[in-house]
Amino acid sequence: MKSPQVLNRVMELVEPELVNSVKKLSDELLPVIEYHFGWKTIKGIEAPEDTGKRLRPSLAVLSAEAVGRDLEVAIPGAVAVELIHNFSLIHDDIIDGDKERRHRPSAWTAFSIEDALIAGDALHTLAFQVLLEENTPESVQAARRLVDATTTMISGQAADMTFDDLPTVSFEECLKMEAAKTGALLGYSSSVGAILSGADEKTCNALEVFGYELGLAYQAVDDVLGIWGDPKITGKPAGNDLREKKKSMPVSIVLSANNSDSEKLLEIFSTKEDLDEEEIVRASALIENAGGREATLEEADKHLKRAIEFLNNADIRKETFCELEEIAHFVVNRDS
Amino acid sequence: MKSPQVLNRVMELVEPELVNSVKKLSDELLPVIEYHFGWKTIKGIEAPEDTGKRLRPSLAVLSAEAVGRDLEVAIPGAVAVELIHNFSLIHDDIIDGDKERRHRPSAWTAFSIEDALIAGDALHTLAFQVLLEENTPESVQAARRLVDATTTMISGQAADMTFDDLPTVSFEECLKMEAAKTGALLGYSSSVGAILSGADEKTCNALEVFGYELGLAYQAVDDVLGIWGDPKITGKPAGNDLREKKKSMPVSIVLSANNSDSEKLLEIFSTKEDLDEEEIVRASALIENAGGREATLEEADKHLKRAIEFLNNADIRKETFCELEEIAHFVVNRDS
Repeated sequence: MKSPQVLNRVMELVEPELVNSVKKLSDELLPVIEYHFGWKTIKGIEAPEDTGKRLRPSLAVLSAEAVGRDLEVAIPGAVAVELIHNFSLIHDDIIDGDKERRHRPSAWTAFSIEDALIAGDALHTLAFQVLLEENTPESVQAARRLVDATTTMISGQAADMTFDDLPTVSFEECLKMEAAKTGALLGYSSSVGAILSGADEKTCNALEVFGYELGLAYQAVDDVLGIWGDPKITGKPAGNDLREKKKSMPVSIVLSANNSDSEKLLEIFSTKEDLDEEEIVRASALIENAGGREATLEEADKHLKRAIEFLNNADIRKETFCELEEIAHFVVNRDS
Repeated sequence: MKSPQVLNRVMELVEPELVNSVKKLSDELLPVIEYHFGWKTIKGIEAPEDTGKRLRPSLAVLSAEAVGRDLEVAIPGAVAVELIHNFSLIHDDIIDGDKERRHRPSAWTAFSIEDALIAGDALHTLAFQVLLEENTPESVQAARRLVDATTTMISGQAADMTFDDLPTVSFEECLKMEAAKTGALLGYSSSVGAILSGADEKTCNALEVFGYELGLAYQAVDDVLGIWGDPKITGKPAGNDLREKKKSMPVSIVLSANNSDSEKLLEIFSTKEDLDEEEIVRASALIENAGGREATLEEADKHLKRAIEFLNNADIRKETFCELEEIAHFVVNRDS
């Protein structure tokens, strides 16, 4: 699926700023970080790689345009949120034992756990540095909100980790975890440009809720792709989320239904080891037949609709509304 | 060695605030963090454990008293710097493969790498949250400086890691790394109370340089204890730093001397594995006989003298000068 034009427009603007920010870090940290961002190969050779969608910076920039400001004002926020997002990707890949990301070895696989850990730490601090060095009341407010969103994101990841030790997780628990893990930072992304513009609180909040709901839709789709996504397109192994018996949304829906399908899935998940290829195939068929995939996609649609509704009621520019709407639909219909 | 009375006085004040801050984090994160801080056992039972010296909060609080302010004003800074310090301890123990800290299994050993990693991330963000939620120009300034000190600390840790892959490291390179890894955060600690008090820049800077020089002395002593410290007192295995062939100060001094001792040490270090007990004993004797221990202790003394000199020239209260001086001497003469 072709990504919206607006993502490319923003990327042309934000990517050089992201590169400049990262260059402030000490030389020892750069190889892992430049590799992770898709700017360089493992050996440090510049190469056009898949850098990811830069969804969060795009939302950030559009949230400044949404309130009638030039997009330049949003750039520190756009850079900061992408730094936090990528620190979390690098650390989460270690935590989840994910060996691949965007068709390449993940950072810890390409380098080492130690190197990836410290690189993530550096990006984490850098994000706050980018906002605090601006030194305006708006950028301090943006830093404060980023701290809160990051805390929530980390608590979501921690909740996700505890799910691994539970035999079953309810839909509500799963949703709460995903709201923290993904919703908070997307809510931040979708409002930081408005915050940096000094927009009124009501508009900032409406944009934040749009992003939060979009985040829930995003994560639901992510969960579907994590089981049924095409490895050639997602860049991750088939059934990746099932291997480690992740309690993602389709899984939690089936597990908490308390019927014969729940019991069958519980049985497959009862092994102490990772699932093997054959078990992954069985589990994904079982979850699909039990309606877990469909229910998750319905959930994605529900939150997409809510997101658009909030956006529709916000006092923002019409052109930007259309661009944000296009991104929202792209996010829910994407295949990678 | 008995710790100065002032450390206990500050601990009584700061420890409850530290506990309160950490309690803001989500329940999933608490077991690792409360264990790491020495408040609870692995099983979550409250138990009086060794919590560490809380050196940084003490310096922070004293730096407010130094400029004639009540120590309460320094508390957010004292808490924040201890949170950053402990995030770095938790992550560094993973990176360095250190299995023990303060006579107990380190966080990643007691729980898991994943749990320790996310717990460290949570403390990292929380530190900035503590300062930013105060919302005064002084606390924003303190947050900005903490971001800078943390960035420097991380770059120092990254440099230390690259040393592992180098056959030899010069004294100057080692000193530069230690200034970043330890000096920056101790410099911050020793000035944040003054910054939060709105003290003049000259006094803040003098206090910062005092802490920075003290940090260099602290790290030199740490390096000596890392090789020759008594495991019963330090809580770490004997010769801990030599096991992984760490290029600490005594090692770098001997390695870069370009004489027969350097060659002998290079030869012991040439194994791809960790050093075994016998090799550790041989290496530590070699470094001691080659003067590495003595030279490092002289370095500690040199920086201690400089620290006191800067403090002496700063426009601060005399009682506080005496307390800071006492702490400085304690740091350099400590045995754990």
